[in-house]
Amino acid sequence: MSIILLTTVPREEETMWLDALCTLLPGEDIVLPDRIEDKEAVDLAIVANPPQGVLRTLPNLKWIQSLWAGVDALLGDSTLPEAVPLVRLVDPTLARSMAEAVATHVLALHRNLPVYARQQQKSLWLQHELPLASERHVGILGLGEMGLASAIQLTRLGFNVRGWSRSLKSQEDVKCFSGDEGLSQFLQGLDIVVNLLPLTAETKGILSKSLFDQLPQGASLINFGRGGHQVEGDILEALTRGQLSHAVLDVFSQEPLPEENLLWRHRGVTLLPHVAAPTNPKTAADIVTQNIQRYRSSGLIPKAVERSVGY
Amino acid sequence: MSIILLTTVPREEETMWLDALCTLLPGEDIVLPDRIEDKEAVDLAIVANPPQGVLRTLPNLKWIQSLWAGVDALLGDSTLPEAVPLVRLVDPTLARSMAEAVATHVLALHRNLPVYARQQQKSLWLQHELPLASERHVGILGLGEMGLASAIQLTRLGFNVRGWSRSLKSQEDVKCFSGDEGLSQFLQGLDIVVNLLPLTAETKGILSKSLFDQLPQGASLINFGRGGHQVEGDILEALTRGQLSHAVLDVFSQEPLPEENLLWRHRGVTLLPHVAAPTNPKTAADIVTQNIQRYRSSGLIPKAVERSVGY
Ligand SMILES: NC(=O)c1ccc[n+]([C@@H]2O[C@H](COP(=O)([O-])OP(=O)(O)OC[C@H]3O[C@@H](n4cnc5c(N)ncnc54)[C@H](OP(=O)(O)O)[C@@H]3O)[C@@H](O)[C@H]2O)c1
Ligand SMILES: NC(=O)c1ccc[n+]([C@@H]2O[C@H](COP(=O)([O-])OP(=O)(O)OC[C@H]3O[C@@H](n4cnc5c(N)ncnc54)[C@H](OP(=O)(O)O)[C@@H]3O)[C@@H](O)[C@H]2O)c1
Repeated sequence: MSIILLTTVPREEETMWLDALCTLLPGEDIVLPDRIEDKEAVDLAIVANPPQGVLRTLPNLKWIQSLWAGVDALLGDSTLPEAVPLVRLVDPTLARSMAEAVATHVLALHRNLPVYARQQQKSLWLQHELPLASERHVGILGLGEMGLASAIQLTRLGFNVRGWSRSLKSQEDVKCFSGDEGLSQFLQGLDIVVNLLPLTAETKGILSKSLFDQLPQGASLINFGRGGHQVEGDILEALTRGQLSHAVLDVFSQEPLPEENLLWRHRGVTLLPHVAAPTNPKTAADIVTQNIQRYRSSGLIPKAVERSVGY
Repeated sequence: MSIILLTTVPREEETMWLDALCTLLPGEDIVLPDRIEDKEAVDLAIVANPPQGVLRTLPNLKWIQSLWAGVDALLGDSTLPEAVPLVRLVDPTLARSMAEAVATHVLALHRNLPVYARQQQKSLWLQHELPLASERHVGILGLGEMGLASAIQLTRLGFNVRGWSRSLKSQEDVKCFSGDEGLSQFLQGLDIVVNLLPLTAETKGILSKSLFDQLPQGASLINFGRGGHQVEGDILEALTRGQLSHAVLDVFSQEPLPEENLLWRHRGVTLLPHVAAPTNPKTAADIVTQNIQRYRSSGLIPKAVERSVGY
C-alpha cells in the first residue's frame, strides 16, 4: 500500500511536508503524483490544496487527510470522489494559536489600539474612557475547535463571552446560543463579534448588513473564518455610517488581497494576511502520523467531514 | 475634624472627586483649601497632584491619602511634611486594568501587530513565523500590586513569565529574581520586558543601554511605570541598531509629550498617552472611603509609603 501527497503549495513547502512525513512514518511508502507507479496501490491521500482531478483516478482510496483545518475549498472541488471519507486537520496547537489571535485582537479593540495609533500619527495626546474587560461583551460565531478554545481564553481575560453554534453547546462561563432565533439574541448588546464559522452554504455571506444592524452602534468585527463569510461592501458601508467602528480582517475572497482593494487603506480596518492560525507543520505532521498509525493498526478512520452540511 | 481635598487637576475633575467623597462619607466635613475655616481642625488630607506648600500649614494632619498609585511626584515635593504618614492608592481594579494593558501589548508584540500595521500601509501581503506564547519569555520589572496581577494574567495566556523585585517573591508559574545579580539572570533570553517599577532613586533611568544590552538582540520593551525610568536617547539608539525591535511607551518625563518629540514619529514606537491604568474614580473613592471609615472607627492608619526607599 502507498500514500500519495497531493499539493499545489510551493515546491519547498511540498518537500518539507514529504520529508517530515517520511521521517515520522518510516515504514510507509509516501509518494508525489509524478513518482507514482501503481495507482491501485494507493490507499491514502494527504492533501493541501490538491490539484484537481487526481484523487478520482485512485480506485482504492480509503480516506483523504487534509493538512488544513478548513475544507471549504476542497469540498468546492467537483472532482473530489464522493464516497471517500475526508478528514480535516484537528490540531490543538492550531486551536491554541487561534485562541491567542482572538485574545490579541479582542484586547486590542477593547483597549482602543486603533484609536491610539491614529492619534500617534497626529502627535495627539488624548485619553479615552477605559472600561474593564468585565464590562465588555464578546460573541463568537462558531463554537468548534477554534471557537471553543478562543471562548475559554476570553473568559480567562475576564470578558463576558457568548457563543453561537448549530447545535446548542454548554460551557462554563460562556453563554451559548444556537439556530436562527438564537442568533438575534446572541448579537444583542455585543461590543465585539468574532467569526470562527466554517464556510458552508448556510454561513456564506453571514457577515452582512443584516447581521451588523443587529449589533449595537459602534460594535467591532473580527473575521478569522473565511473571506466568503464577509460581504466586503456591507463592511465598508457599515464602517462609513459608524454602525461598525472597526473591522479586523484576516481572510478574503481573493488571497493575497489585490493591492487595489480599498480595504488595505481603510482607517477602520486592521488587515492581516491570513495569519490567525497557520497550520504548524511540526504538530500537523505528528497528528497526521497518529491518524495513519491508528488506521494501520486498527482500521479506524478518523471522524470525517459531514459533506451534506459542509464541515 | 475635617478632611481637606488638595488637587491641581482640572476644576470639573476636582468637583467630581469632592461630590463622590461627600456622598460616600456623609458624616465628614470635606473641604477645598479656599473654603477652610480652621486649619487646626484638619486631620486628614486627600491629594491628587496637590499644590506645593499647603500640606505643611496643617498642624494636626494625621495622614495623607493619595488618589494615585504612584507617589514619586509627591515624594519629590520638598514641602511635604516629613513626619506625616503618606498612603498611596492600592486598588485591585487598577491592578486589573494594568494586567489587561500588559496582556494587550505583550500579545500585540507577540503576534507582530506593529509589523503587520506597517505592511498594511504598503498593501504588502507577507506572513511571518508565529511561535506560540509558550515559546516566548516575558519578564516583569516590579512584582508589586501591578506587576503581580500582570504576571498572573500572562501565565494564563501561556507565556513563560519572570519577575524581578527588591525582595525575592514566590508565585506559581512565575520565575522570580531579585537584587542586582538577579537582574542580569532575569534579563537573559527575554523576548519582552515590561517595566512596572515605582520611580525611586534606585530605579531612575533603569531602562537604559546597559539593560537593553543584556537582552537578546531584537527584544521589545514596554514601559508602563514612569517616564523617569527610561533614557529616551538610549531607547532611540537601541531601536536604530536593532537591539530593541519595538518599544511601547505610556509614560514620559514630560506629559503630555511635546509634539516635537521624535518618539511620536518613530516607527519602532507605540506611543500611548498615559492610559495603561488610570485611576478609576468610582473604585478609588470607595477605597479611600473604606480607609477613612476604618481610621475613624479604629484609629488604624493604612500601610504608609516607606519614604527612605521611595515607594
Ligand atoms: N484564519 C485562519 O488562519 C484560520 C485557521 C484555521 C481555521 N480557520 C477557519 O475556522 C473555521 C472553523 O474551524 P474549526 O476547526 O473550529 O471548525 P469546527 O470544529 O468544525 O467548528 C465549526 C463550528 O461552527 C458551527 N457551525 C457550523 N455551521 C453553522 C451554522 N450554519 N450555524 C451555526 N453554527 C454553525 C459548528 O456548530 P456545531 O458545533 O453545532 O457543529 C461548530 O461549532 C474553519 O472552517 C476555517 O474556515 C481559519
Ligand atoms: N502607566 C500607568 O497608567 C500607571 C498606573 C498605575 C501605576 N503605575 C506605575 O506602576 C508603579 C508600580 O505600582 P505598584 O502599585 O505595583 O507598586 P508596588 O506595589 O509598590 O510594587 C513595586 C514593586 O517594585 C519593586 N521594586 C521597587 N524598587 C525596586 C528595586 N530597586 N529593585 C527591584 N525591585 C524594586 C518592589 O519590590 P518589593 O516587592 O521587594 O517591595 C515591588 O515588587 C507605580 O509606582 C507607578 O509608577 C503606572
